[in-house]
Amino acid sequence: MDDRLEKQLAFSLEIDKEKNIFRQTHLSGHGRNENDAEHAWHMAIMAYLLREYANEPVDITKVMLMCLIHDIVEIDAGDTYAYDEEAKKTQKAREDAAKERIFSLLPADQKEELTALFDEFESASTAEARYAHAMDNLQPLILNSSNGGSDWREHGVSASAVYGRQGHTKEGSERLYEVTDRIIRENIGKGNIKNDL
Amino acid sequence: MDDRLEKQLAFSLEIDKEKNIFRQTHLSGHGRNENDAEHAWHMAIMAYLLREYANEPVDITKVMLMCLIHDIVEIDAGDTYAYDEEAKKTQKAREDAAKERIFSLLPADQKEELTALFDEFESASTAEARYAHAMDNLQPLILNSSNGGSDWREHGVSASAVYGRQGHTKEGSERLYEVTDRIIRENIGKGNIKNDL
Repeated sequence: MDDRLEKQLAFSLEIDKEKNIFRQTHLSGHGRNENDAEHAWHMAIMAYLLREYANEPVDITKVMLMCLIHDIVEIDAGDTYAYDEEAKKTQKAREDAAKERIFSLLPADQKEELTALFDEFESASTAEARYAHAMDNLQPLILNSSNGGSDWREHGVSASAVYGRQGHTKEGSERLYEVTDRIIRENIGKGNIKNDL
Repeated sequence: MDDRLEKQLAFSLEIDKEKNIFRQTHLSGHGRNENDAEHAWHMAIMAYLLREYANEPVDITKVMLMCLIHDIVEIDAGDTYAYDEEAKKTQKAREDAAKERIFSLLPADQKEELTALFDEFESASTAEARYAHAMDNLQPLILNSSNGGSDWREHGVSASAVYGRQGHTKEGSERLYEVTDRIIRENIGKGNIKNDL
């Protein structure tokens, strides 16, 4: 087998490990914790189906790819909970090291492409990245909401923290932020999110 | 919330259930059984990275979408193991009913689009569908191969059955079929696949 294909298959096998990285979000029906691969799959389909609500026209292939690969670094770096301020301090260093190791398994051109795509997502510097971030927020929101807000209750999350993260959804989609805001307000009303506003 | 968005979000929540549909394939590192959502995520990334090996030029967005949605029907129909001849007799009827119920949650235009995409995949009638099928075969092959062929051994699968399925990979990618064939022959040699040829 030639070197290029061998590298592509080695990377393909390596990313299987993403299925073992579990998040704080629970599956609908009060299910188990969700893993990163499932989350990415769900985001990519939602991105396609909801693309009409993106604030700006987006290259949907690029968005789907961003959704699919954005958590690969967590194979080494682990999942950093959105509301864990301590862990977030070391997140970038952990993820940079992981990005270098894992994407280096690919041929150089594909390493470069996926690294650029990951960096674009992280920096939220394009319409595609901002819309992909809206999916990264909306996907766990609909699961958590379907479970009566139990993920927020379990961690005692405050309204300011939820808005701090979910507020960015409006940069990708004003329309989907309207839905987000309504769900957050309902959950504050029910006491699932601590009202510190 | 308007009716269209409500339907799109209802569908988005419904497909979460795909994460509970487990396959016969095991994760690398002799892990647990893989579920359909993880399998679809993995296929979509591999499809993108390996697209240079497709026999014909493909619309990669369409291929990735096919990969992402091709197992949604299994939410109702369950997973049918590729080498379970009894279950395969009722597979089409079960999956047709599931397709109608689940895709009907979407707005009419998106129901039509996803149904057509699913049918195209099933019929293997286009370059995209044939290449997506190659991914549907190659993804579990690399996991199983990394685990020393344990999925084949567990089910006592024969070489003719393996070739009956994996042989279709060459319709999507001659190059990837070369790799497939080498892996199968190695596993016949090691006794992981029963040699009935």
